[in-house]
Amino acid sequence: MTRTSLQDFNCSLARTVDLIGDKWSLLILRDAFYGYSQFSDFRNRLGITPTVLTARLQALTNAGILQRDQVREGIDRHHYRLTAKGRDLLPTIISLVQWGDKWIFEEEGPPIVLRNRQTGNALARMEVCDSAGKVLAPRNVTFEAGPGATAETRAAVRSARASDTGDTAK
Amino acid sequence: MTRTSLQDFNCSLARTVDLIGDKWSLLILRDAFYGYSQFSDFRNRLGITPTVLTARLQALTNAGILQRDQVREGIDRHHYRLTAKGRDLLPTIISLVQWGDKWIFEEEGPPIVLRNRQTGNALARMEVCDSAGKVLAPRNVTFEAGPGATAETRAAVRSARASDTGDTAK
Repeated sequence: MTRTSLQDFNCSLARTVDLIGDKWSLLILRDAFYGYSQFSDFRNRLGITPTVLTARLQALTNAGILQRDQVREGIDRHHYRLTAKGRDLLPTIISLVQWGDKWIFEEEGPPIVLRNRQTGNALARMEVCDSAGKVLAPRNVTFEAGPGATAETRAAVRSARASDTGDTAK
Repeated sequence: MTRTSLQDFNCSLARTVDLIGDKWSLLILRDAFYGYSQFSDFRNRLGITPTVLTARLQALTNAGILQRDQVREGIDRHHYRLTAKGRDLLPTIISLVQWGDKWIFEEEGPPIVLRNRQTGNALARMEVCDSAGKVLAPRNVTFEAGPGATAETRAAVRSARASDTGDTAK
């Protein structure tokens, strides 16, 4: 089976990753969450070529994750700001930061500490919980075909579940 | 400023993204969480070339995210399984899935539904909270230099905070 595009995948992760699953897009999003919005900001912070940056900003704007606005009428300078769709990537960005804090910067401590702006409280560690608030490890998570599953997905789920023992290998 | 590697960034997100911030690595991790472990599993599900798959599995193994074990002694077949470091990427993977469920598969519904294996409860929506349990939107999150900050990071934080009004642009 050969696929030319992740657009063909009946999978929320694949489709999301198709939009933001590259190093520069994720770093642009990081900086947008920090409040940076101008081409020159991203360019200076990331050190990428204008061509690559233009392409990434365009793709994120086309995806509805960033919104491009003129800084002032009559001036050819623009802000790129997170839309509601983009702001909803905060859990993804924070979970990537926290993983790096723990597994890469464990010895020296985190380069950046994030806090509640109003109270100064530190952020809690992100965890996967069920609707009753129970924290789940990978082995405690199971899956089933949902309403948006294609026939192919349903068959894959049946076959995966048949060999899914929930053992500690996960 | 030109950088050749994200390894030079004093940033947890950049360093994490350097390890897993590409489409195929994230899809391999997705499948590892589903319980798939063999080269042929990943190959069949992702439809990528053996060369690319080999390189990605090698990189994830070198990073300590996957562990490569022989299926049985004397047989040249291997399992690739998540280590503790790899399992700790669950919040990242789930937050990517949930974003896609909401923003890409909103109409047809999610292709896959995740549940607590023991109780059948659905997963809760991942949110960023502070240590007191308050859910935070991007505009409610602020940042400061941490113990692992370099002088360059400290300067960037000072300059960013000077223009950081916490307005709704974020």
